[in-house]
Amino acid sequence: MSKEPSTNLESAMQMLIKTFHKYSGKEGDKYTLSRGELRELLTEELGNYLGNAQDKDAVERVMNDLDSNNDGEVDFTEFIILMGALTVACNDFFLDSPAPKKADGKAGGDEKKE
Amino acid sequence: MSKEPSTNLESAMQMLIKTFHKYSGKEGDKYTLSRGELRELLTEELGNYLGNAQDKDAVERVMNDLDSNNDGEVDFTEFIILMGALTVACNDFFLDSPAPKKADGKAGGDEKKE
Repeated sequence: MSKEPSTNLESAMQMLIKTFHKYSGKEGDKYTLSRGELRELLTEELGNYLGNAQDKDAVERVMNDLDSNNDGEVDFTEFIILMGALTVACNDFFLDSPAPKKADGKAGGDEKKE
Repeated sequence: MSKEPSTNLESAMQMLIKTFHKYSGKEGDKYTLSRGELRELLTEELGNYLGNAQDKDAVERVMNDLDSNNDGEVDFTEFIILMGALTVACNDFFLDSPAPKKADGKAGGDEKKE
């Protein structure tokens, strides 16, 4: 870990690793996220993308989807699968929106033909 | 896309998306990486991790592994699967090495018991 990341991709990989361990180390097994740690991570780090992660049900659903071995913990591989799926969804969203749209309830509705 | 990413995870997602499109847009289908584009991306963006990506065979192997639908192109989802696998491998590597090791051919070999 002596080298600093020198490209955007290397930084992205380091950020994913560091963010996971920032939360996974808080309680219990320090290499996995408990429900509480997952909730904190989703709320604090992905608030913009997952607006309603505060919603208890949403965290419960994400946890159940991710926790493929049903141990109530999300390990790093499961976390990376979530991040991959979110990134693909995010990419698709931008590809599907050729022009920037307003995000405040008027998406796509403010175009006028003349 | 009006909001700047405000957390490390959001930045990581944006970097993955931007880096892919920086290379995918160079030739042919602008939403997929050709062999040439993949080689450029691996060499320029992941040189530290994949030391021998200049090696033609290595690029060929990565391409064959990733290109699950055999069209000679790597799409964004295939790219994210590669990045996920690399990030998991990278995380495992750091977890397996409690102390920093020298990377220049002496890994683990310079420890002395006294």
